[in-house]
Amino acid sequence: MKFKPVLTLLLLNTCFAAFSQDRPAHKEHQHRIASTEKGLVKIAVMYPYAEGKTFNMEYYETKHMPMVAGFLGPNLVKYTIEKGVASGIPNQPLPYMAIGTFYVKSLSEYQAAIAPNREAIRADFANYTNTAPVILVSEVVR
Amino acid sequence: MKFKPVLTLLLLNTCFAAFSQDRPAHKEHQHRIASTEKGLVKIAVMYPYAEGKTFNMEYYETKHMPMVAGFLGPNLVKYTIEKGVASGIPNQPLPYMAIGTFYVKSLSEYQAAIAPNREAIRADFANYTNTAPVILVSEVVR
Repeated sequence: MKFKPVLTLLLLNTCFAAFSQDRPAHKEHQHRIASTEKGLVKIAVMYPYAEGKTFNMEYYETKHMPMVAGFLGPNLVKYTIEKGVASGIPNQPLPYMAIGTFYVKSLSEYQAAIAPNREAIRADFANYTNTAPVILVSEVVR
Repeated sequence: MKFKPVLTLLLLNTCFAAFSQDRPAHKEHQHRIASTEKGLVKIAVMYPYAEGKTFNMEYYETKHMPMVAGFLGPNLVKYTIEKGVASGIPNQPLPYMAIGTFYVKSLSEYQAAIAPNREAIRADFANYTNTAPVILVSEVVR
């Protein structure tokens, strides 16, 4: 019967360990959300709108972007896709039909990963658009 | 002495409850990360680069963007700031010096919040830039 209090204490310890471990993990998680993008390099591929220009969002989302993302490996933190809706300035034309963005840790690693696949990427353009993209490399400030 | 096994069981239960509650919470959290932006409206204010054009990132980050964000209330999910570094296409000029983005739930609410403050926002432009922005309204697809 002597071991019962010991067992009880052990179980209590386990409980406290479970609860106390939960807190730092949660904090770390929150920290990760807040700083996920800050300091990352963002490569935005922007497809300008003009009369006669087309863009197939379904192909872009299900084929092209996953293909390029696949080339980038663990350097890729996330990628996003947006569909241009309007200019935010009245009576101005839509600036871009679509923008695809890669958030990466290292620009040089991104370039090294894209270089051997550049022709495959360019060849795929014709499958979803007839416009030539503008590409902006930027640093996430916030 | 009879209550000891009961207490032990109770403690075990508490432990299992602690561990099992941790899992769904974590899943929900991950889900929230994955779908934070999808379906939101994104208003991107893009400042084109050209010779002689200037941009004061410090003022933009500490004064202008917090001011505009303050007008938007709970409709604003998050805002981001990025600093243009280069064109992603060799031998092309930098497309934009900076981009500030508001992710909102409702475009009409955004417009209603900005309308009465438009002059204050425009008057502040001169404090950090001499370039006129391009504004893209888009829908976050992914």
